[in-house]
Amino acid sequence: MLTVEEARARILAALHPVPAETVALAEAWNRVLAAPVAARLTQPPADVSAMDGYALRAADAAAGARLRVVGAAPAGRPFDGTLKWGEAVRLFTGSVIPNGADSVLLQEDAESDGDTVLARRPPDAGQHIRRQGQDFAHGDIVLQPGRRLGARDIGLAAAANHPWLSVVRRPRVAILATGDEISMPGEPVGPGGIVSSNSHSLAALVRACGAEPMLLPLAGDDVDAIGAAAGAAAEADLLVTTGGASVGDHDLVQAGLAAHGFALDFWKIAMRPGKPMIFGRLGDRAGATAVIGLPGNPVSAFVCAVLFLRPAIDRLSGLPAGVPPVEPAVLGAAVRANDHRADHLRARLSIADGQTVATPFARQDSALLRALAESEALILRAPHAAAAHPGATVSVIRLDRLGF
Amino acid sequence: MLTVEEARARILAALHPVPAETVALAEAWNRVLAAPVAARLTQPPADVSAMDGYALRAADAAAGARLRVVGAAPAGRPFDGTLKWGEAVRLFTGSVIPNGADSVLLQEDAESDGDTVLARRPPDAGQHIRRQGQDFAHGDIVLQPGRRLGARDIGLAAAANHPWLSVVRRPRVAILATGDEISMPGEPVGPGGIVSSNSHSLAALVRACGAEPMLLPLAGDDVDAIGAAAGAAAEADLLVTTGGASVGDHDLVQAGLAAHGFALDFWKIAMRPGKPMIFGRLGDRAGATAVIGLPGNPVSAFVCAVLFLRPAIDRLSGLPAGVPPVEPAVLGAAVRANDHRADHLRARLSIADGQTVATPFARQDSALLRALAESEALILRAPHAAAAHPGATVSVIRLDRLGF
Repeated sequence: MLTVEEARARILAALHPVPAETVALAEAWNRVLAAPVAARLTQPPADVSAMDGYALRAADAAAGARLRVVGAAPAGRPFDGTLKWGEAVRLFTGSVIPNGADSVLLQEDAESDGDTVLARRPPDAGQHIRRQGQDFAHGDIVLQPGRRLGARDIGLAAAANHPWLSVVRRPRVAILATGDEISMPGEPVGPGGIVSSNSHSLAALVRACGAEPMLLPLAGDDVDAIGAAAGAAAEADLLVTTGGASVGDHDLVQAGLAAHGFALDFWKIAMRPGKPMIFGRLGDRAGATAVIGLPGNPVSAFVCAVLFLRPAIDRLSGLPAGVPPVEPAVLGAAVRANDHRADHLRARLSIADGQTVATPFARQDSALLRALAESEALILRAPHAAAAHPGATVSVIRLDRLGF
Repeated sequence: MLTVEEARARILAALHPVPAETVALAEAWNRVLAAPVAARLTQPPADVSAMDGYALRAADAAAGARLRVVGAAPAGRPFDGTLKWGEAVRLFTGSVIPNGADSVLLQEDAESDGDTVLARRPPDAGQHIRRQGQDFAHGDIVLQPGRRLGARDIGLAAAANHPWLSVVRRPRVAILATGDEISMPGEPVGPGGIVSSNSHSLAALVRACGAEPMLLPLAGDDVDAIGAAAGAAAEADLLVTTGGASVGDHDLVQAGLAAHGFALDFWKIAMRPGKPMIFGRLGDRAGATAVIGLPGNPVSAFVCAVLFLRPAIDRLSGLPAGVPPVEPAVLGAAVRANDHRADHLRARLSIADGQTVATPFARQDSALLRALAESEALILRAPHAAAAHPGATVSVIRLDRLGF
């Protein structure tokens, strides 16, 4: 059995970013930038005023003279002429500083009768001026590829005059839930049957990670049905299956995919919940679709998705991919010594004495969806970790900060 | 001038959640639930096996007898009969426990020749059985309204057999950027002109907050143009303007909206950046559109959006709305004593000795888009806060955790 870290490293080593596409700026939020964004203009385009007031020569104002207001230059309508001794030009935040002026008299420091203005508190030379290009100059790279674009990045790309951006295509992730007992919400449920939850929570998670989910029809516990789904997944970048990894003595997913050229990389990880997780690829190396076979238990499937699927999508998306963020927390209840498998205890978070306290749920059954939905963190228990008492420091993955 | 807290309280008091709509489960991720979700079935639907193995009577197995395997019950295909003394039924994770059986012998503890099975390590009565309804019972409320639906919630709603969910409609937020100097990316830029960044970053932020942005055509610094836009905003839940709040001696936005029945609530907040922020409403009280008039400076606009627009959208969306999460951090560089306005210093974060260090940018000019895009936190400086040295504890809003 592989460790969690070995398994993740092997998954990431096998995956590569998908190609780029061009999208409108208005559609680029939360996409991963695929090419550097170079400024197509200089900002500010010239020396501009940082405030409302009057452009003048500092030396004039310092002399205490009344200056003649020879014009106004609202932002976007620069003053045409050149300022001479004894002259001032009315301007506003963002106005271009006229030729000949060297500073801005603040409106609140000015005494004006419309035609003339007097500086009650004269500015220093250069004061209240934003210099040409102080934000960026034409040709400057303002955004580097590999960055997930936030709202501020979108504003920066707009200011740099880009109506289109090159972003990494959304990875296509096919989702195949298997099992004779499962059905789709709102459809007939057989005797002893349940409604599939994995396909829907995984589709949401895939979407939240910036990829495009493709929900394949449910497949029963049947090698042929699972095999048929493999064909449909050929155009996906990644096929995620749930269930069927160890049905009794059979591994139906592996058997079903075998007819479509499935090459197994590994299928067991020393972890709990979620030991039987498959990784491999479908098809030849060039046009291969990676396959992650998640366990059927919803909690196991979700924990494996946090540990492996999200990093896999990040890698396909051209993002830095690795361990989910791990933070320290104070243990809120005793935990037993761990066996050889890395454990991931579902826990609630609270704050006590300014510290984050993680309290594991008393029942850690991997079929409890309600406790899973209420979990705020996974407490990480290393293989063979000793028993720990309340107050001990533990490592947690904060589920509330994963963005899904 | 209002304090930041007073201003936010007045905005939130004036806003109410928008109505609900029904969406397909596959579209419900990240939406705000508008009605309780009651389980439409019981999960598990019966007592089921938690493991692969054999259903039997614990007393039989304890006696050391070889048990006759009288059938198999894969998940979704329950065993029809009733188990008698000396009998066992092959089953799998999720299989219904047959009548007459009281426990599950683990596959790895079983010695089977196909027709019979011997328990090498007999189970206790009740062991490895998931009880009917231990996750939820028919009629249980599994999700409460007012919750933003995460991937796990979607899985839970699916398991509870809901193909549709009632969610709060996305608030419609109209965005109006004003200014003679601004143009759209890719379009001609006038002399001394710049490309509008606010409308695009705000549209992204609005979308990230779960609302629907509606980009109105740019309006020049012109009362009539701004007024015309007001009509287009009538069907929005919220109109956000940028710029025009204090152009020289005029307040163009207020003047422009006046003809459309604008009622001002307040227009000045004791904060930096972003003092001139307008709040009010357009139209009569019943069909009113709330108006937030942001400053034109991109940094001011963004900080005001963090402090006021996001909570406003949360309130319209039916979420708990209030102060953005504030966390402690260690100051990384000296800061001066503050004046009467609450300050919001753009800062980078780092980790030293396990603590989060927030270091303000040396230049805090509210026109610097690049520094804004690189900021990871806002350091909050209360009105009249004393000068502080590196190492002091300060409060920060982590921009990297706001989801936009």
